[in-house]
Amino acid sequence: MATIVSPLAPKFYPDMPEIEGVRFSTAEAGVKYRGRTDVVLASLDAGTTVAGVFTQSKCPSAPVDWCKAILKNGTARGLLVNSGNANAFTGKKGSTAVELSAKIAAKSLGCNVNEVFLASTGVIGEPLDAGKFEAVIDDLAAAVQPASWREAAEAIMTTDTYPKIATATVEFDGKAVTFNGIAKGAGMIAPDMATMLSFIFTDAAISPKVLQSLLSGETGESFNSVTVDSDTSTSDTVLLFATGAAEKRGVAKLDDLDDPRLGTVRAALGDMMQNLAQQIVRDGEGARKFVEVQVEGAESDISAKKIALSIGNSPLVKTAVAGEDANWGRVVMAVGKAGEPADRDKLAIWFGDIRVAVDGERDPEYGEELAAAVMKEEDIVIRVDLGLGSGQACIWTCDLTKEYIAINGDYRS
Amino acid sequence: MATIVSPLAPKFYPDMPEIEGVRFSTAEAGVKYRGRTDVVLASLDAGTTVAGVFTQSKCPSAPVDWCKAILKNGTARGLLVNSGNANAFTGKKGSTAVELSAKIAAKSLGCNVNEVFLASTGVIGEPLDAGKFEAVIDDLAAAVQPASWREAAEAIMTTDTYPKIATATVEFDGKAVTFNGIAKGAGMIAPDMATMLSFIFTDAAISPKVLQSLLSGETGESFNSVTVDSDTSTSDTVLLFATGAAEKRGVAKLDDLDDPRLGTVRAALGDMMQNLAQQIVRDGEGARKFVEVQVEGAESDISAKKIALSIGNSPLVKTAVAGEDANWGRVVMAVGKAGEPADRDKLAIWFGDIRVAVDGERDPEYGEELAAAVMKEEDIVIRVDLGLGSGQACIWTCDLTKEYIAINGDYRS
Repeated sequence: MATIVSPLAPKFYPDMPEIEGVRFSTAEAGVKYRGRTDVVLASLDAGTTVAGVFTQSKCPSAPVDWCKAILKNGTARGLLVNSGNANAFTGKKGSTAVELSAKIAAKSLGCNVNEVFLASTGVIGEPLDAGKFEAVIDDLAAAVQPASWREAAEAIMTTDTYPKIATATVEFDGKAVTFNGIAKGAGMIAPDMATMLSFIFTDAAISPKVLQSLLSGETGESFNSVTVDSDTSTSDTVLLFATGAAEKRGVAKLDDLDDPRLGTVRAALGDMMQNLAQQIVRDGEGARKFVEVQVEGAESDISAKKIALSIGNSPLVKTAVAGEDANWGRVVMAVGKAGEPADRDKLAIWFGDIRVAVDGERDPEYGEELAAAVMKEEDIVIRVDLGLGSGQACIWTCDLTKEYIAINGDYRS
Repeated sequence: MATIVSPLAPKFYPDMPEIEGVRFSTAEAGVKYRGRTDVVLASLDAGTTVAGVFTQSKCPSAPVDWCKAILKNGTARGLLVNSGNANAFTGKKGSTAVELSAKIAAKSLGCNVNEVFLASTGVIGEPLDAGKFEAVIDDLAAAVQPASWREAAEAIMTTDTYPKIATATVEFDGKAVTFNGIAKGAGMIAPDMATMLSFIFTDAAISPKVLQSLLSGETGESFNSVTVDSDTSTSDTVLLFATGAAEKRGVAKLDDLDDPRLGTVRAALGDMMQNLAQQIVRDGEGARKFVEVQVEGAESDISAKKIALSIGNSPLVKTAVAGEDANWGRVVMAVGKAGEPADRDKLAIWFGDIRVAVDGERDPEYGEELAAAVMKEEDIVIRVDLGLGSGQACIWTCDLTKEYIAINGDYRS
């Protein structure tokens, strides 16, 4: 937990309503950090369903393997998350540690081992001592209560400079159901210190199949549309839990992919996930600028997204933003290197509302001072029109500053 | 041209023998810089053949378009290169400028327009004034002489901190033939200021088809195996010219791809190109460490190279090297994100000779102090054995330092 909060942090935190069927507690287990909470337990009422999406890494952490394996059951009663140790690349010791962690939590929650989801974030390659959880688990289980969203978000922070929380309410059948989420992540990944984790909870009753469709469907334009440094964690995990408590209040279960109510849910959940994902970028290591990259006119949406990520991951684009320079030449470079269909002579580029290039050359109307004001802003939009088709995409990134190097290169010195 | 030379610069420069049929001159054309040379003219004797490889960018510069178009003729009489302006993303003005530049040079050299090769490096998006060349071309043509290799390399520098030259001699039929090369580049690319260019010359007589086979064949393990920042230039150009002068000395022309002498040529040319490519990395913007990434045990050579580049391009691996930290967890991460076949539990990783991880976890014999000495070196080898097959690759990169951010982000301030 850094002491200086990112200048891009949200200016206020939302009030998080309680979600019936979800209770939290946190503790100082001393996994690595001292003087701060580093473990969170969520207790979930019987009947809770679950969906998940995970890192695409070919070298996933032991908790990712664990969650993928038990996800097929579709039900959950507990979630145990720690910071300070990622339990990644820990071999046989890693799988032993997750089994023991789940057993400890299951015993204290009175549920089956394969109903306990796990996530870990922190140092990679160090064996995780599940005994640390054993020492605090009974106190954790005794202390769970429904209002601890911010405390839960704080316990999972690593290089994060602020906790990430968001909430959304949807009206169904004249009654409100709620989605609350927490997240962490400060590099897209820094396996020694960071990783993207998010846990979302709702009191709606949603079948596992529909829940997975909702989560997978909304991940693309949220957590999979942000980048800090192009590096992918061994541990990225997003879990969505539905306690079903709203069913008792007369909100019918969502168990059909053709249910007309799903459109409203997708929109609300998608906005909330995008909000959490953007909060991660706003806490990007060393970030001083938040950048939205809009690509349109591509041959397809997939092609547009590849080009947008090529721009958003380019060290030269990101250092130019840090230097408050509307360096559209580097945007051209990043479009060109993406390997996707592009016609140099049809390209147009904007910084904010200022068109800097058109028809493959500098906009004749453009003067550097026009974009200078845009580049001084905290939030910057880079827009590219490829002029080829109707494919479009939007991703979010941050600038690349010396502070990123300091966080990731100087920490041992 | 920076005033502080990279600490990784070669400790001495080779003596460059003359190559019959190649003569150079340089001038201060004032394209952008003041008080330094910024244009080089090479005059090539009649009968010179040529081969080329170019950027894969979908937004190539006007000179790249020009060279690709005339390369099919297979012959060359001149080469005109400038620094300070890339003539990239300059629309119709760009193609007009290359046509005029070629015309000016052809007139002064007494050759056809389509025998003049062009390359430009520097600012992107600014129209290039070919009139700058017109003002100096007659003096350039009058001043060409065979010994100006280093001066030529200096005239094409941008953010480079030292000129890059290399030479190789091969014995054919009891007689020596020579390959001399010059190069520039200090980011893999920074379109505002850098780009990778290399021009190689030999007195051997080599048919265009064989020459292209030689150049294309040796590019993979040289210029296409280095990265500074993962960004690809609009202007990368490597040209190989063969004057054929050695034929007069009794060295038979190479015009058959089955010629047994080709093995010797490939080896010598490949080594020289690798040398030049490594010199570019050693001059990587802000570089303080030179890193060789060796990947073995992959399913194929292509897969090995993708994994090696994933490691070599990772900002987190590169910042760890800058911090002299043997952070193998970040190497695991970079292997995992490459998307290539990998089995976490078969991975082994070395820094220098120190094995830090084996069988998917920290090597039980490894203590951090062992690798600390390796990380303090200027040249560092990171080796990964995937334990899957016999595919292997080797690439070169540098560390990522605050100086990189300063060069690419602070230059306007």
